[in-house]
Amino acid sequence: MVNLEEIGKKAVTAKYSLQGKNTEEKNAALFLIADRLTENTEAILTANAKDVAAGEKNGMHAGLIDRLRLTEERILAMAQGLRQIAALPDPVGEILEQFTRPNGLRIEKRRVPVGVIGIIYESRPNVTADAFGLCFKAGNAVILKGGSDALNSNKAITDIIRSALLEAGMTADVLQLLETTERAVTAAFMRLNGYVDLLIPRGGAGLIKSVVENSTIPVIETGTGNCHVYVDKDADLTMAVNIIRNAKTQRIGVCNACESLVVHSAVIEKLLPALREALSPYAVEMRGDERVREILPDCVPAQDGDYGTEYLDYILSLKTVDSVEEAVAHINRYNTKHSETIVTENKEAAEIFLDGVDAACVYVNASTRFTDGFEFGFGAEIGISTQKLHARGPMGLKELTSYKYVIRGNGQIRE
Amino acid sequence: MVNLEEIGKKAVTAKYSLQGKNTEEKNAALFLIADRLTENTEAILTANAKDVAAGEKNGMHAGLIDRLRLTEERILAMAQGLRQIAALPDPVGEILEQFTRPNGLRIEKRRVPVGVIGIIYESRPNVTADAFGLCFKAGNAVILKGGSDALNSNKAITDIIRSALLEAGMTADVLQLLETTERAVTAAFMRLNGYVDLLIPRGGAGLIKSVVENSTIPVIETGTGNCHVYVDKDADLTMAVNIIRNAKTQRIGVCNACESLVVHSAVIEKLLPALREALSPYAVEMRGDERVREILPDCVPAQDGDYGTEYLDYILSLKTVDSVEEAVAHINRYNTKHSETIVTENKEAAEIFLDGVDAACVYVNASTRFTDGFEFGFGAEIGISTQKLHARGPMGLKELTSYKYVIRGNGQIRE
Repeated sequence: MVNLEEIGKKAVTAKYSLQGKNTEEKNAALFLIADRLTENTEAILTANAKDVAAGEKNGMHAGLIDRLRLTEERILAMAQGLRQIAALPDPVGEILEQFTRPNGLRIEKRRVPVGVIGIIYESRPNVTADAFGLCFKAGNAVILKGGSDALNSNKAITDIIRSALLEAGMTADVLQLLETTERAVTAAFMRLNGYVDLLIPRGGAGLIKSVVENSTIPVIETGTGNCHVYVDKDADLTMAVNIIRNAKTQRIGVCNACESLVVHSAVIEKLLPALREALSPYAVEMRGDERVREILPDCVPAQDGDYGTEYLDYILSLKTVDSVEEAVAHINRYNTKHSETIVTENKEAAEIFLDGVDAACVYVNASTRFTDGFEFGFGAEIGISTQKLHARGPMGLKELTSYKYVIRGNGQIRE
Repeated sequence: MVNLEEIGKKAVTAKYSLQGKNTEEKNAALFLIADRLTENTEAILTANAKDVAAGEKNGMHAGLIDRLRLTEERILAMAQGLRQIAALPDPVGEILEQFTRPNGLRIEKRRVPVGVIGIIYESRPNVTADAFGLCFKAGNAVILKGGSDALNSNKAITDIIRSALLEAGMTADVLQLLETTERAVTAAFMRLNGYVDLLIPRGGAGLIKSVVENSTIPVIETGTGNCHVYVDKDADLTMAVNIIRNAKTQRIGVCNACESLVVHSAVIEKLLPALREALSPYAVEMRGDERVREILPDCVPAQDGDYGTEYLDYILSLKTVDSVEEAVAHINRYNTKHSETIVTENKEAAEIFLDGVDAACVYVNASTRFTDGFEFGFGAEIGISTQKLHARGPMGLKELTSYKYVIRGNGQIRE
């Protein structure tokens, strides 16, 4: 029986305890946890084998089984990830601003941990270590709710981390796992205000929608990406084909993959045949409007729903426009505010696009696939935010912090 | 009949239109609106008189009638507020960070408007102009839902602002008012995701709780303040009395007023008699623990509920502790993460308090009453955030913005 109230209280106590630890102590704990994870590879693999066997028995899709399965290499990668997080600068305590008021009050805006972070995720058990590591380094206590299919794996990983935390002189409750497969418990977890400061869902669109609709705790939406490449009339078409091929096919199941091509009517005749050839080794299905189908007669007619769909598959929708302004309007209507790119040699068109498109990341002449914490140089990421509050785009350690104002006076009162 | 879907769509169109306007155009509109408000004082007062008469007829509390009532002076103050907002620097477009990656991608983090902001507030009709002005200057479209008691007043003010917006060459839909007194409409408004990016409730604890529990749009909680003054063993007791008197009595109904005194046992004997004398002109009711009552025998015994209560009245709870650490733990248990102050001459105790207390604003040797956008030098504020995401403490123009990453490449694809 999961007692959420008790878990919440333990997390709050652990949060204050962790906030009394310095950077060296946190890093030492991360290194120790990394070692203990690899040393206990067998135990993790045994627990994981149970989850995989149950998944196979229940007819789980092969792709999901692959995400669920741990290997020696994946456990090594988890440990390595924690060591990389240890090497990143500690964001806590940074002075963001400092100023003195005419009455002598000295005001300092200081970066502090968020507090208690809840993470609800699906079947990849390596998220357990990754998400913990980032939250912990930024001074936060964590409550994880992983996928039911991965409960044995998550429990094994969590047990090892918790005992290593104790060994490192930390409170084990800095990390707690909700050991439940009951939906009602997850629903109640989403309403644990007063204990949990922030909830981050990681997974498919269904999971994220459910958290947004049911949580009373502040949520950061992550990951849904209906990303566009717009090829302008003044594009370098070789570059355009190259960027589309990369954004569409380099990895199809990720949120920053391209799902839709918007193309200026002036270049459609030259671009499309070259693109079809470039995409042919990947058997990408194209779904286009009438003007596209005049040039590519075998192209599937695009339905209205296509322009709003994140395929995560070898499918690309195509839309013809007559100006950059029309491209901007089309993208703003259908996108998920994630990542959008224009291919153009025209500086004016580029600025119209960069200013006008409403998305976390707007590119000129580059693939949307660069929206990623490592690619941005953040060292690691907890997810890509597609909402506009607190954090937008790739979220690293800094995005797992808040701030407080520290004000020093010498007896000031308000007149 | 209010059509929320249509209102949402109009707000989104207006948002993009406003984002095409520069600072001068926005400021010119603010000045024009200010003029039109004062020129139409009679119309506003006539509409307001209807609301006041209805309130009196329905037996509305005198304090609420006072908040509802507009006067020539209050309308002048509204107009003056808009002119002050025009004079503030425009936050939109500021480059927050800029860096180049090893692969040549130039990444810029640029401040942009949030988009569409919804504000749900209670009976003070001057909020209509204030909230609009701040959101507008920061480039946002606004949808307001004011108190039902003030509907005529809000409608009059909104009509004047909308027609001045048109006159200034702006889309009137930059400001829309939900003209409804139906709770079901307000409830549906809180679920208008896809159109509204941020919801800010302004009003009492009940309103804020209802918005947090029912909204699926990101919410910034504002205003609930159970603020403490802690008097340390090394305090200057004259300063302490002065700060407590100010924080408790300078204005009792505000969120940054002091509700609870925490006092070190070493100074309790000297402090309390002096404090009682200082507070006697205000007839402040004191509710203390046993050790307090040994010194002030006429003090009311504090019940458990007292320490968690925001009185907004001439009442003060008192708690005795034996160390700064105990004070920090007590405050973190009962506070609302708003504003807390320590009075001490001991630097070590001050740092323990500033580090340990979890609140938007932590003070040493100053009144909690300084937590305010004007006092912080932000020029104006939309509220005081008591949550930890996006913004904490006084929220000015910058806190009504988000950011986007603008990335410039020359054909980069991801390997």
